[in-house]
Amino acid sequence: MNNIHQQPTGYGVELPKWFLDARDVLPQRLPDPEERIRTVNHLATRTVAEGAGGPFAALVIDRQDGDIIAAGVNLVLHSGLASSHAEMVALGIAQTRKRAWNLAAAGEGPLLVVNAQPCAMCLGAIIWSGIGALEFSVEGVEVERLTGFDEGPVPSNWREQLKARGIEVATGRLRDESLDVLRQFRDRVDDGSATLYNGG
Amino acid sequence: MNNIHQQPTGYGVELPKWFLDARDVLPQRLPDPEERIRTVNHLATRTVAEGAGGPFAALVIDRQDGDIIAAGVNLVLHSGLASSHAEMVALGIAQTRKRAWNLAAAGEGPLLVVNAQPCAMCLGAIIWSGIGALEFSVEGVEVERLTGFDEGPVPSNWREQLKARGIEVATGRLRDESLDVLRQFRDRVDDGSATLYNGG
Repeated sequence: MNNIHQQPTGYGVELPKWFLDARDVLPQRLPDPEERIRTVNHLATRTVAEGAGGPFAALVIDRQDGDIIAAGVNLVLHSGLASSHAEMVALGIAQTRKRAWNLAAAGEGPLLVVNAQPCAMCLGAIIWSGIGALEFSVEGVEVERLTGFDEGPVPSNWREQLKARGIEVATGRLRDESLDVLRQFRDRVDDGSATLYNGG
Repeated sequence: MNNIHQQPTGYGVELPKWFLDARDVLPQRLPDPEERIRTVNHLATRTVAEGAGGPFAALVIDRQDGDIIAAGVNLVLHSGLASSHAEMVALGIAQTRKRAWNLAAAGEGPLLVVNAQPCAMCLGAIIWSGIGALEFSVEGVEVERLTGFDEGPVPSNWREQLKARGIEVATGRLRDESLDVLRQFRDRVDDGSATLYNGG
């Protein structure tokens, strides 16, 4: 008798009802870069309020027409999977929707928009997914300083590493608004109404 | 009308039948370190033969009694998710089985055994999962040289980065056998019977 038989036959993330509702009221297209950052900040704030995970959200955007291909939020606490960072959820949904592990299979790789710099894990996942461009608002060092999250072993030349693989990077848009989302999360951790898990 | 309504309500990995069968005949415990490497090499070879993904497999092992907590193989092609590396699958199964994103929640973090060095994404995922020790057989530079896979932005001080977070690392056991698995994969890529996807 091998108790390995008790093992799960798969794993995954089911999006919570509140997120499906929040996604339903998003516009089909978000051509305005500031609106994209406001959208991820809004979803990140909601995620913390729902107790689903950390203050992070991501959008996969078609660079031709601005269509939202997928949205994701941090679901580490909701899913019980430590890898369910916002970027991983958005990429997982996009790849499931497109039925392709390579989001650049049909041409230009899409844009990934995040409120904060991807951690070490998500940096790798972005490269493997076929994403063609990355935009985030707040730097990883600020995430670590403001929230207490660890961003992991991100090499100092990460930007060159992405560029060498054809991935453009833009940062800093609506930085003050995005910093506020992280500060509000930290306040909730300090008053016991939010959880700081491993990693960012 | 918002075509975001057509989006999936989740994503995940269903383990293929051949893998469930292969898992069923694993012993409950693998206390011998060489047997662990032989087991991941066996599973890695099978994964390529089944066309499910790259030549990589992983085991999550209880360090107290040697029990196999979870097994995983690379399922990028099978699942259509670029993040389905062997380490991610094994960690996802372990976290689902333990109902905990933190595998160290109940005490000492388990050991992750892989045939080859984790890529940039998996390096981060290992840290976030509560893994307490890592053993692999083949270095990442050899994976890149022999297979053509990209290992991503792994910082040169990755070993110190793991150690600083309490994760012990051991490498090099049964290296020649493990290198042979990678060479056989490359031969299959060259003769058109295996696929080289993004990332390792």
